[in-house]
Amino acid sequence: MSPIETDRIQSLLPHWVETSRQRSSQGKVAAYIPELSKSPIDALGVYILGADGTSASAGDYNLSFTMQSISKVFTLILALMDNGEEGVFSKVGMEPTGDNFNSMLKLELVQPGIPFNPLINAGAIVISSLISGHSNDEKSSRILNFFRELSGNDTLTYNFDVYRSESATAHLNRSMAYFLLDNGVLQGEVEDVLDVYFRHCAINVTCADLARMALVLAHDGTDPLTGAALIPRRYVQIAKTFMITCGMYNASGEFAIQVGLPAKSGVSGGILTMVPGRYGIGVVGPALNRKGNSIAGVHLLETLSREFDWSLF
Amino acid sequence: MSPIETDRIQSLLPHWVETSRQRSSQGKVAAYIPELSKSPIDALGVYILGADGTSASAGDYNLSFTMQSISKVFTLILALMDNGEEGVFSKVGMEPTGDNFNSMLKLELVQPGIPFNPLINAGAIVISSLISGHSNDEKSSRILNFFRELSGNDTLTYNFDVYRSESATAHLNRSMAYFLLDNGVLQGEVEDVLDVYFRHCAINVTCADLARMALVLAHDGTDPLTGAALIPRRYVQIAKTFMITCGMYNASGEFAIQVGLPAKSGVSGGILTMVPGRYGIGVVGPALNRKGNSIAGVHLLETLSREFDWSLF
Amino acid sequence: MSPIETDRIQSLLPHWVETSRQRSSQGKVAAYIPELSKSPIDALGVYILGADGTSASAGDYNLSFTMQSISKVFTLILALMDNGEEGVFSKVGMEPTGDNFNSMLKLELVQPGIPFNPLINAGAIVISSLISGHSNDEKSSRILNFFRELSGNDTLTYNFDVYRSESATAHLNRSMAYFLLDNGVLQGEVEDVLDVYFRHCAINVTCADLARMALVLAHDGTDPLTGAALIPRRYVQIAKTFMITCGMYNASGEFAIQVGLPAKSGVSGGILTMVPGRYGIGVVGPALNRKGNSIAGVHLLETLSREFDWSLF
Amino acid sequence: MSPIETDRIQSLLPHWVETSRQRSSQGKVAAYIPELSKSPIDALGVYILGADGTSASAGDYNLSFTMQSISKVFTLILALMDNGEEGVFSKVGMEPTGDNFNSMLKLELVQPGIPFNPLINAGAIVISSLISGHSNDEKSSRILNFFRELSGNDTLTYNFDVYRSESATAHLNRSMAYFLLDNGVLQGEVEDVLDVYFRHCAINVTCADLARMALVLAHDGTDPLTGAALIPRRYVQIAKTFMITCGMYNASGEFAIQVGLPAKSGVSGGILTMVPGRYGIGVVGPALNRKGNSIAGVHLLETLSREFDWSLF
Repeated sequence: MSPIETDRIQSLLPHWVETSRQRSSQGKVAAYIPELSKSPIDALGVYILGADGTSASAGDYNLSFTMQSISKVFTLILALMDNGEEGVFSKVGMEPTGDNFNSMLKLELVQPGIPFNPLINAGAIVISSLISGHSNDEKSSRILNFFRELSGNDTLTYNFDVYRSESATAHLNRSMAYFLLDNGVLQGEVEDVLDVYFRHCAINVTCADLARMALVLAHDGTDPLTGAALIPRRYVQIAKTFMITCGMYNASGEFAIQVGLPAKSGVSGGILTMVPGRYGIGVVGPALNRKGNSIAGVHLLETLSREFDWSLF
Repeated sequence: MSPIETDRIQSLLPHWVETSRQRSSQGKVAAYIPELSKSPIDALGVYILGADGTSASAGDYNLSFTMQSISKVFTLILALMDNGEEGVFSKVGMEPTGDNFNSMLKLELVQPGIPFNPLINAGAIVISSLISGHSNDEKSSRILNFFRELSGNDTLTYNFDVYRSESATAHLNRSMAYFLLDNGVLQGEVEDVLDVYFRHCAINVTCADLARMALVLAHDGTDPLTGAALIPRRYVQIAKTFMITCGMYNASGEFAIQVGLPAKSGVSGGILTMVPGRYGIGVVGPALNRKGNSIAGVHLLETLSREFDWSLF
Repeated sequence: MSPIETDRIQSLLPHWVETSRQRSSQGKVAAYIPELSKSPIDALGVYILGADGTSASAGDYNLSFTMQSISKVFTLILALMDNGEEGVFSKVGMEPTGDNFNSMLKLELVQPGIPFNPLINAGAIVISSLISGHSNDEKSSRILNFFRELSGNDTLTYNFDVYRSESATAHLNRSMAYFLLDNGVLQGEVEDVLDVYFRHCAINVTCADLARMALVLAHDGTDPLTGAALIPRRYVQIAKTFMITCGMYNASGEFAIQVGLPAKSGVSGGILTMVPGRYGIGVVGPALNRKGNSIAGVHLLETLSREFDWSLF
Repeated sequence: MSPIETDRIQSLLPHWVETSRQRSSQGKVAAYIPELSKSPIDALGVYILGADGTSASAGDYNLSFTMQSISKVFTLILALMDNGEEGVFSKVGMEPTGDNFNSMLKLELVQPGIPFNPLINAGAIVISSLISGHSNDEKSSRILNFFRELSGNDTLTYNFDVYRSESATAHLNRSMAYFLLDNGVLQGEVEDVLDVYFRHCAINVTCADLARMALVLAHDGTDPLTGAALIPRRYVQIAKTFMITCGMYNASGEFAIQVGLPAKSGVSGGILTMVPGRYGIGVVGPALNRKGNSIAGVHLLETLSREFDWSLF
């Protein structure tokens, strides 16, 4: 957390980034959102931010990308702040599924047909429906403002190309939303809920933005750079726990064993993670492995966690 | 097929209808389409039509009800007439599923994610998308005209209350349609396809209408009352085979063993069946058993098949 | 049924067999029972037996092979004769599954966890447990004698190499049997039940044997060559219905549409089928398609049914 | 970790135990192993052991019970010590399943058909097969000795009544084992592997034994009371991670959120957990909740974790 620490990380980071970057050729850029397929396949960037504001960074850390599923951690937190634990957990469960992030099997097979957790697509759609606001626009504004506050970046905004691309092709999310409506889990108009969902997935960030947001979680909801208390500690605890058990799609168990840090990935290749009490970390590497996580990004985090003994376990 | 035969059936039918009607109290009227829940729970009617135009009938055979899934037999036939076997069977399979009629499990679990057969909901939605026509209205008109021709009833039309009720609440069908769109099985706009689907499900009929439509199938596609060749025999053969293997939801196997006739039921409580080469039969009894078939209607057909040795097997 | 008919079939059969035989190269001989993998991959034989004793045959109709799943039709019949309909259908259902013949999914997913039908492996194992007898040997003897009676072949016996090979490698059948034991569906010792099951699967036959057994079914349980009433008609009806809905694994629906005859196949490449009221038919072709049915045999039966308009539908 | 700490816990513990004990009436003692159904339904005991040997305890902490699934944590560790990470993780995965602990669905549905993790039944059976030894007896001896060493209790031994009861009724475990054999995941004789498995599940312990075993894990593999290095730290890390993601059956996610400690439960009502770096904890309460965990035990641990802020997150 001291400049000395980040200096030491900085001295090693560029080499590790280049080593991990080579994994990119074994991965694939997400194609199911057409706009995402334009991402640079061999990019890899990382930004590590300490509580004293010192940082280490390497590679393509200036690359701009959409948050995608990473946003789900923070909409969950906002939904908790809006509805309390009971309000949220009457609509989504707390369990990992072992299935793909967009699977609908358990919605049909397991009564009462609520999403198993808030980080799979079905769960995140329900969470979007729980954000307070009189209209889509108000809900979306509240989310964007919350993300700006957490990232300390007032210019955070949407990538409308990605938003439109996802909205036009997200048939499976529509399918899920109607299923949830039929199960009585989702309230309101499907297209309205999905609009809120597509918007927060399409918020543009850099690794530095993710690192700052993660730093707040790493310090129990208080931004150590400003001292501002932004999230009640209990909700940070809930979010971090979900990040361990369900944050990396159906590779969360493996990531917990190989890295051991709360993390959340997105199909844009971003990963937000943290060393609790110390660092906030943002990573981006658009080439994905078979489970949908950044192949080079996961490799880099495995290296970092092993070298610095960062695992919580 | 002679007046003597239908006379004999007529003499026995009222008693059997009253016996079977008592089963109604063990069933439930479909509630998932709100408008259907208004159906009279203890109604039971039957109309049996011979090739010579003589008929037998009993009970509430004048009750008007919507075709619901029964219509799927005839949209399948029209889709075959419009697209040929290859055109249809590249989009839907030929196998029973063992699952509920509205299950989505196999769409996710079994590659290539096409509906297992044209009589489950997912399959019937795909079939609706295959009807020729430049617009929803044209497609729907072609279907309605085809049904009028088959039933010899020019006044056949929609029950708009049921149509609106289903359209407003059919979240699961929407979910299925978007899933099929994502799988690349469905073409066009989901709401357009569903509009065609909801319309043909909401066509109002009586038992006599069903009996006449069934009579055409029982005579290999030719209406014996007019001599008009309405359907190519091969497509009738395909339809009758599906009615045996998949016509009674996931009770089709049991119905084949206990009754042994090609049949198709709907959640309105209607059943269309036939004695090939002889009779067309329409039945209605809105109280449904656990599998979604008319509880009294199935009992009545078991009695008739056993008494007259009608099973094909 | 007259010599004239079989003469006509005989004149065409050799050509059709040679045409269909060419499909064999696209199939695979069953490998999961090691002994079966020795079967001649391009063999194809057929034997068609009329009620007057005249026959037509072509290709490798003298090939000896094990009945495998074909035997399940006749153990079902024997179990019905031993226990009645109620005794049997409290333990197995009447529905096709849409799943692979050795799938266990529905045993876990669908209450009350009884096999969906008696022709999938789980169901056939339960049927084996229902055969009367004080010991495995007595049960197996009763089955063998019943099969000898039906085939008119007193020399019918086991292929012990196949029996041992299957018994040694049938881990999945053991898995299924223990699951059924846990579900309370199976009584007795698992190995005892499986021994009965493996034995009847390993009974050696030729196409002529199958044709004779099928001829009895085609004539409602009476052997037309001897006049002996061997099976109550109702049980033949039940068996034939299952052969239509579930006889060809999860290609039964397609076979019903393309051939339209009651049939049962085995992984040895055998198919037993019939033209009700007329012929009994035995086919063998060890090369299997993706669904586990003889690839050349199915093609040959499609040709025959189309040419002679044999479909029941 | 100091006597002062355990004194403080001790002063509060009896009251909390009595409060939590009242939950027992809402749970059920495991019935599927007949011998377990004799457990006292309203028992609740806890033993908390510090690194200095001081302890706190309350309720029925002297109750003797079988380890059941708790043993799986330590057979996993022994298998890792015998085979290394690669040897173990080629046979079992690292992911939570969301399914019941004895579900077989994913073995059939998800290729390559290896158990998702080593703590569900299928995985633990595979782990039992990986323990080194020339015979069942040698494998079982090595396990028992390892458990004795970890617990510092040389008298640890089997409850043969429970062992026999489970062995006689564990049809589902046999089913699973044969399925795994068929998938090529399990080596050797099924009954041999299961014998090793049933034995280690039937090792009798008290809360104090569990607390001592947990204390070793809480101190990265070194027994703080003797200074003996018993387990390589990496394997403890792996075990603790699995305990967070999969230790409490398909309520692991909820337990992680409500308690936040690595834990493993058994159907005997035992729970082993720890506060890393500080305490080892053993709990027993035979009344189970719907997910198979001690209903009173979970409530007690929720209270403790909340009051002392023990969550890792």
